[in-house]
Amino acid sequence: MSVTAPQGFEAAGVAVGLKSTGKPDVAVVVNRGPLKVAAAVFTSNRAKANPILWSQQVMHDGTVEAIVLNSGGANCFTGPFGFQTTHQTAEKAAELLEVSAGDILVCSTGLIGTGDEVFRSKVLEGTERGIAELSAEGGEAASLAIMTTDSVPKTSVHDGDGWKIGGMAKGAGMLAPGLATMLVVLTTDAVLAVDEADAHLRSATRVSFDRLDSDGCMSTNDQVSLLVSGASGVTPDPDAFRRALIEVCTDLAVQLQSDAEGASHDITIEVRGAATEDDAVEVGRSVARNNLFKAAIFGNDPNWGRVLAAIGTTGAAFDPYDVDVWMNGVRVCTAGGPDRPREEVDLTPRATSVLIDLRVGAESATIFTNDLTHDYVHENSAYSS
Amino acid sequence: MSVTAPQGFEAAGVAVGLKSTGKPDVAVVVNRGPLKVAAAVFTSNRAKANPILWSQQVMHDGTVEAIVLNSGGANCFTGPFGFQTTHQTAEKAAELLEVSAGDILVCSTGLIGTGDEVFRSKVLEGTERGIAELSAEGGEAASLAIMTTDSVPKTSVHDGDGWKIGGMAKGAGMLAPGLATMLVVLTTDAVLAVDEADAHLRSATRVSFDRLDSDGCMSTNDQVSLLVSGASGVTPDPDAFRRALIEVCTDLAVQLQSDAEGASHDITIEVRGAATEDDAVEVGRSVARNNLFKAAIFGNDPNWGRVLAAIGTTGAAFDPYDVDVWMNGVRVCTAGGPDRPREEVDLTPRATSVLIDLRVGAESATIFTNDLTHDYVHENSAYSS
Repeated sequence: MSVTAPQGFEAAGVAVGLKSTGKPDVAVVVNRGPLKVAAAVFTSNRAKANPILWSQQVMHDGTVEAIVLNSGGANCFTGPFGFQTTHQTAEKAAELLEVSAGDILVCSTGLIGTGDEVFRSKVLEGTERGIAELSAEGGEAASLAIMTTDSVPKTSVHDGDGWKIGGMAKGAGMLAPGLATMLVVLTTDAVLAVDEADAHLRSATRVSFDRLDSDGCMSTNDQVSLLVSGASGVTPDPDAFRRALIEVCTDLAVQLQSDAEGASHDITIEVRGAATEDDAVEVGRSVARNNLFKAAIFGNDPNWGRVLAAIGTTGAAFDPYDVDVWMNGVRVCTAGGPDRPREEVDLTPRATSVLIDLRVGAESATIFTNDLTHDYVHENSAYSS
Repeated sequence: MSVTAPQGFEAAGVAVGLKSTGKPDVAVVVNRGPLKVAAAVFTSNRAKANPILWSQQVMHDGTVEAIVLNSGGANCFTGPFGFQTTHQTAEKAAELLEVSAGDILVCSTGLIGTGDEVFRSKVLEGTERGIAELSAEGGEAASLAIMTTDSVPKTSVHDGDGWKIGGMAKGAGMLAPGLATMLVVLTTDAVLAVDEADAHLRSATRVSFDRLDSDGCMSTNDQVSLLVSGASGVTPDPDAFRRALIEVCTDLAVQLQSDAEGASHDITIEVRGAATEDDAVEVGRSVARNNLFKAAIFGNDPNWGRVLAAIGTTGAAFDPYDVDVWMNGVRVCTAGGPDRPREEVDLTPRATSVLIDLRVGAESATIFTNDLTHDYVHENSAYSS
């Protein structure tokens, strides 16, 4: 059910030929209310795609009626023509839904530089057909239509106390040939004000999607949106809602990690004993972005020296000679020196855990990443255009 | 001739079994004077190997008599025992050369965590045998003894106006199984004071080795040393010497790039039109460290969208929609949009040039990197530990 699990939402997914495979490629999600509250977070890449530039404007008043999403083209670096395409998509949806174009979010994913007249006409056709096919059972079709190189659709639902949260996500991590990464739509029928929705979304993405760092490459098109219908009539306990949203976002983030192209290990890097949470994130991310560490995990080699060499490049507070490292539960490094023999670490399972104790404070953070494999290189070299 | 090309230097390379292949693995370079001036730069990784910790102390007075270098073990994260090994190596060399141990630099390269009693006894044996075999023709033997996975030795000589600069280097870029990267020894018979040697070395490494970023992974053992014998009796023109040292360092850096393991392209990323040199370096490095860009080059795909997505993550001054990009001389992107068709770019040659014009200033910088290949993943996963 994904995004249509909560009350007040309709969705659809249609195929208009943006994908050469003929699979569904345009999704529409509509909020039927009574509330039309929304929050969104966008890629922090300064090179932003046209749909990001458009959607940032839409979010200024916190009101969103619907989202149109397409795969098969990023509409990024396509100039004024590309921006007009996004604008026309919003206008088309607004006209058919009898709302304002300024309340329509647009998301695109696919190859950068793609956004010609053929692309425009197909996206407009998809918008029209998607809106014609809207239904309260359309969540699954929508989750299929936003897939690019994903092997499975990613959805999540949380059943709260009288309210629900639904979500769908695509791509991520090991990036697809065209830099098409993370698009996420979250829905809820809980009653939330704009400020509450925004605060909940930011606190949830900060510890879920922002902690997913599959290959260190930031997209131009990332967008996570939360649509609030209020159709349950229930005002949720703020803490319960926040925890539920974190749970749904983490569930989707882990689904993205598990489907990362080319990956053979899902690596969870937990950093403990940090002076600050920022330090913990910086240390975890430095390991997640170290190609030598990632290649070693691919080779089932518990090379803790590469972990220390990676964290040594950060500015976090710690003494390199007083750090402990565990791999899959085995303490391989104590106080910056060898502890248990490498042979005791079994890295054959896909799920891999690295625990780093900086031994200077009480803060922690967990980063999700993948290994660097032959398939990653293959996917990102052989199929590009 | 490498490091023994200038007057006043003797060197040797011997095999003591640190390498399982039986190839030479300990090198000694001695400065016979009359000057014993030296300068050195070290890895900025906070996780520093024992020989780095030792050599930093040695450099405090700018006087160096000799350098002992070993391959086959990094002596990093080996605790107090490992530091004592480095100390004993310096003591052994000092005793045999009848100088102070505080004037002996030590460099090690190999797997992190390697530095047991067998390692110590072999390094000490190598130090003794190396000093016994010192000769003014020993530069080549020394350059062979510092190789790890290098396929060829790297040496360079510059003939100045009455003085010479010699140099040898090992490793780099696509890192060897054990994080063994860059060791460089430079020699000159020019007459230089300590401050001059230090200033020249820093200005040369800043635009040569510091601009080599093969895979973004910083070693724990990097060291570049300049030994000054003054044996020519000639005080060089400062500008001429600086230019010559930059030339030698760049020559060695490019040799390291060309021999980077697993690489199929040597990529020169030139950033122009930057507001500051730091901006140019940051932009070039962001591209050099982007796995998607590096995989695309491996696939002979002129994917300029990945260049823009990479530079969009930097804080440098520029407008993402007013950037021009050339690949191998073809302008593929103008003002942040498509220009010439990708088909016009021939990426089959190993030498690859990427030119990025930020169009906001007059500063520039060049970064040297390599592509991300199957062989890189193989070298760094299959053979580790």
